[in-house]
Amino acid sequence: MDTLYSFLGGSRGAWRVTSLRDVCGEGLPPVERVEVVQGGSLMDAALPPATAWRLRGLTSHVRYAERSEVDQLAAIQPATGRVEATCAALIPIRKKAAWWALAQDERRAIFESVSHHTEIGLTYLPAVARRLHHSRDLGEAFDFVTWFEYAPEHAVAFEKLVYALRATPEWNYVEREVDIRLVRDGQHA
Amino acid sequence: MDTLYSFLGGSRGAWRVTSLRDVCGEGLPPVERVEVVQGGSLMDAALPPATAWRLRGLTSHVRYAERSEVDQLAAIQPATGRVEATCAALIPIRKKAAWWALAQDERRAIFESVSHHTEIGLTYLPAVARRLHHSRDLGEAFDFVTWFEYAPEHAVAFEKLVYALRATPEWNYVEREVDIRLVRDGQHA
Repeated sequence: MDTLYSFLGGSRGAWRVTSLRDVCGEGLPPVERVEVVQGGSLMDAALPPATAWRLRGLTSHVRYAERSEVDQLAAIQPATGRVEATCAALIPIRKKAAWWALAQDERRAIFESVSHHTEIGLTYLPAVARRLHHSRDLGEAFDFVTWFEYAPEHAVAFEKLVYALRATPEWNYVEREVDIRLVRDGQHA
Repeated sequence: MDTLYSFLGGSRGAWRVTSLRDVCGEGLPPVERVEVVQGGSLMDAALPPATAWRLRGLTSHVRYAERSEVDQLAAIQPATGRVEATCAALIPIRKKAAWWALAQDERRAIFESVSHHTEIGLTYLPAVARRLHHSRDLGEAFDFVTWFEYAPEHAVAFEKLVYALRATPEWNYVEREVDIRLVRDGQHA
């Protein structure tokens, strides 16, 4: 499945971990590197050797964005894999049961009307590439895994983006979050 | 995973197939019985013996229903497994790529404002129990599998419900649909 992405925390991979911080809830064991793998099957149960943890999720259709937002995002959102984007952040999140018990209009209202999630994100484009992976329905420990990529010169802007999002009412529904920062140094250990 | 349901078409199970009709797109091979299994793992790859096909999906949070609709549905929607509900329908559906490319507000508008999907459904409650399973993100052949249960005296009402939904603009986005009707006769072959 092309929509399946796996993030393997261990001693291998092109991305070297520069920090791993437990934002709230249970953390993840520290690792040296993260390998990003696209594809494979949901039935791949066994972890590769020297892998401490695996985060998985599926890219999917938009869940909250309306047409005007989809068009704005599409117009300025950069792709992942840009040569200059040697910095990354891997942020798995789990939301409280209370979030998932909300109706669609209530979630959308908190997401956008109150929290301005998309609006905040748009402010920091086109510097930051973003790929969202859905994990909740797979029975994974986290509900979402988001992967961000940016050039070193945009590191401060990215920091502001993360703090702006964490200051929103939407983030009151987050019960577990880990913030992993990485640099691509090309060494596949 | 308690949210995973598998529908095994073959010669086993409490539900006997009374009709299997290809509504549009590729059909499914005819079978005698369907076994409904809750739980198990997404990693269960092998089909049990004498199984011609398997439909799988996950129950999940609501995707379009707003608070007033969630409350109305919760107030009058019956549970599955009622003793008198000896009739069932198993309807897997795949929607066109054009549907999934729409933004959330566009899908919601077609779903409810134009097609009155929830409103039509509410008309036929509390006679018909319904359980929706999401399959698309699992890489299954269908996007959704819906299971309906009703007493024989409500068979005509259920027929009207299905035809009312198929007459909506939302159904223009359906590219594959099979309609399987069943009765519970308690014989586990």
